[in-house]
Amino acid sequence: MESLKDKVAIVGMGISKFGERWDASSEDLIIEAAYEAYEDAGVEPGDIQAAWVGTLRSGEAGVTIADPLKLKDIPITRVENWCVTGHEALRNAALGIASGLYDVVLAVGFEKLKDTGMPGLGTGRGANPVYQAGATAPGYFANIATRYFHDHGWDEEQGKTMLAKVSVKNHHNGTMSPKAHFQREVTVEEVLKAPIISWPLGLLDCCPTTDGAAAAILCRADLAKSFRSDPVYIKGIGLSVDPMLPTLRPGFDYVGFEANRNAARQAYEQAGVVDPREEIDVATVHDCFTITELVIYEDLGFSPAGRGWEDIEAGTFTLEGDLPVNTDGGLKAFGHPVGATGLRTAYEIYKQLQGKAGPRQVKNVELGLCHTLGGTPQVACVAILGNSKG
Amino acid sequence: MESLKDKVAIVGMGISKFGERWDASSEDLIIEAAYEAYEDAGVEPGDIQAAWVGTLRSGEAGVTIADPLKLKDIPITRVENWCVTGHEALRNAALGIASGLYDVVLAVGFEKLKDTGMPGLGTGRGANPVYQAGATAPGYFANIATRYFHDHGWDEEQGKTMLAKVSVKNHHNGTMSPKAHFQREVTVEEVLKAPIISWPLGLLDCCPTTDGAAAAILCRADLAKSFRSDPVYIKGIGLSVDPMLPTLRPGFDYVGFEANRNAARQAYEQAGVVDPREEIDVATVHDCFTITELVIYEDLGFSPAGRGWEDIEAGTFTLEGDLPVNTDGGLKAFGHPVGATGLRTAYEIYKQLQGKAGPRQVKNVELGLCHTLGGTPQVACVAILGNSKG
Repeated sequence: MESLKDKVAIVGMGISKFGERWDASSEDLIIEAAYEAYEDAGVEPGDIQAAWVGTLRSGEAGVTIADPLKLKDIPITRVENWCVTGHEALRNAALGIASGLYDVVLAVGFEKLKDTGMPGLGTGRGANPVYQAGATAPGYFANIATRYFHDHGWDEEQGKTMLAKVSVKNHHNGTMSPKAHFQREVTVEEVLKAPIISWPLGLLDCCPTTDGAAAAILCRADLAKSFRSDPVYIKGIGLSVDPMLPTLRPGFDYVGFEANRNAARQAYEQAGVVDPREEIDVATVHDCFTITELVIYEDLGFSPAGRGWEDIEAGTFTLEGDLPVNTDGGLKAFGHPVGATGLRTAYEIYKQLQGKAGPRQVKNVELGLCHTLGGTPQVACVAILGNSKG
Repeated sequence: MESLKDKVAIVGMGISKFGERWDASSEDLIIEAAYEAYEDAGVEPGDIQAAWVGTLRSGEAGVTIADPLKLKDIPITRVENWCVTGHEALRNAALGIASGLYDVVLAVGFEKLKDTGMPGLGTGRGANPVYQAGATAPGYFANIATRYFHDHGWDEEQGKTMLAKVSVKNHHNGTMSPKAHFQREVTVEEVLKAPIISWPLGLLDCCPTTDGAAAAILCRADLAKSFRSDPVYIKGIGLSVDPMLPTLRPGFDYVGFEANRNAARQAYEQAGVVDPREEIDVATVHDCFTITELVIYEDLGFSPAGRGWEDIEAGTFTLEGDLPVNTDGGLKAFGHPVGATGLRTAYEIYKQLQGKAGPRQVKNVELGLCHTLGGTPQVACVAILGNSKG
């Protein structure tokens, strides 16, 4: 068992405008994202030797992207893994390159949620009813929030104010992301006053329902400099599926997830990361709800267990902090077009590593991390990217 | 761009009983197949480092197989590519091994068609309506048959009799497959008298609607002999997506498919096969309809273009022929539980290469081929397996 480290490079990325894209078909979104990536990498469709496409419920089969992206007679595989779907496109594309069989491949992810609908995240067709039992995503994560409040002895105002700071941070970062769904500031007061979705989570604790697409061009690391002077290298990709619904596990503490911890462990081992808080310079994580981002800080080792809130208070994860998280605004600002999200989180890290994140740019970025979390939650992916090989 | 050749071995395989499995859930089918594979390879669930699961519409996400197969905290990816879905599980698992990141992985495919239903093969949710236009699979392949009849100047009886011989052969082979859905002989007369489904294709020209699952354990080729004395090696896997509906292409001849030819070309190049008719010893191909098997002979280079029928007349593809095809009875006898089929076709080749195909055993098998075809058709996969490392 070797590592993926420095075998695969990303040499082009693109994302569509995220939002209520009533103006655009799935094909339009895919084209927006992939053609930005083609141009960024300086490749033509005919250079692509294989592709992977991630979508949860907005399409079937590889042929979905073949015609719009002018991919002719190559292998194109659809991958799906709930909310981790976009990361699966990236991961399987990376494995394809590392296998030696392909030199240049494409990973694309997309979802069109506004017009096709999504019958409650996590309660769709094909899911085992045992795993769902009427739960919705807001209801599920509300339980995590109430437990976190309880563990820390917080009343409603204390707890909701803490979570609001995550929303305020991500909305602020989103104002500097021209392709984000939401690009406006919110105040703690606004978050506290927002209508309740599932107590204690209000509307501004939740990510919106959004259409979008994202794409990446990957190649063999040793070829990367022939495409561009500033390629980004894959240092590790961990992915973990928890076979059991966490709430069915005796002793489940409701303040973190095995899938997060195991995906991070795999990725850190591959990348040789020992102390993520010190070594990771910037991160994008799965803030489907504000409470989710808080427990992810702890699951990924950015904060000690039970102490993520102290780092929120200290501003550790703001743009000016020691470890900026969701510098682009995260799911809070970009929404969660499922198949696109993993690749969108990678796009921000890619731009940060190249020093091309504009007003959101973090200083001295050498190693970045992107993360998604899916299901109830039972699946997570952590990818670590760096801007030097070595 | 290197080849996959001899980097990856298959060291265990299993299939469920195929049929109308009202008695079994998806999980039951997956367990039947995977536990045969675990036992065949002499591995425990804890030895599996990553997994890929193929299903078209019978489940979502990797978690589908995690609990029934006792896979804990590893990456499990769902792949889907219409009727090639089972082959995608095998192919992505092989890329995972070849990448160096994993030493031992699992590929599983399944579909439960009898109770969940399938709204006409190829007309499901998520498909672009442009590609479907009311076509059903029997109607689509009926057009291929009428064109083939026309090209050769055959009347109804001549054409239907030619196709019937494919059905008779595959039903005969199926009588020697204890896990096949159908295990009974049919006569040419029965095939000709069967109710018409889409003229000229009758009921016995069509594969049935079937439940089933199949599984494979893959490992690094250099580790294979530590699992078993008779591993099977992957020589090449080609997969091709045609971006255009064939019937929309000017000059489309209606007697073969680009996806087949391109997938075969990729696989032959990887495996170093120059003359497939001479070099391939046994094959399983996608006989969703009898006419499909006939044009596949030509697309894969088993017969010269337009002359597959001569080989049917000569008995080339029977168990006693020079190049036995669908020795296990094919889709005609096993049905087409979509996610399972690619792995089921590989299972037969695996057993033939090990000399363990019982009464169906072909003599002197060193190189075998398995094939699936999907969509309208726009996607095909060809995998070539061998029993010695070269």
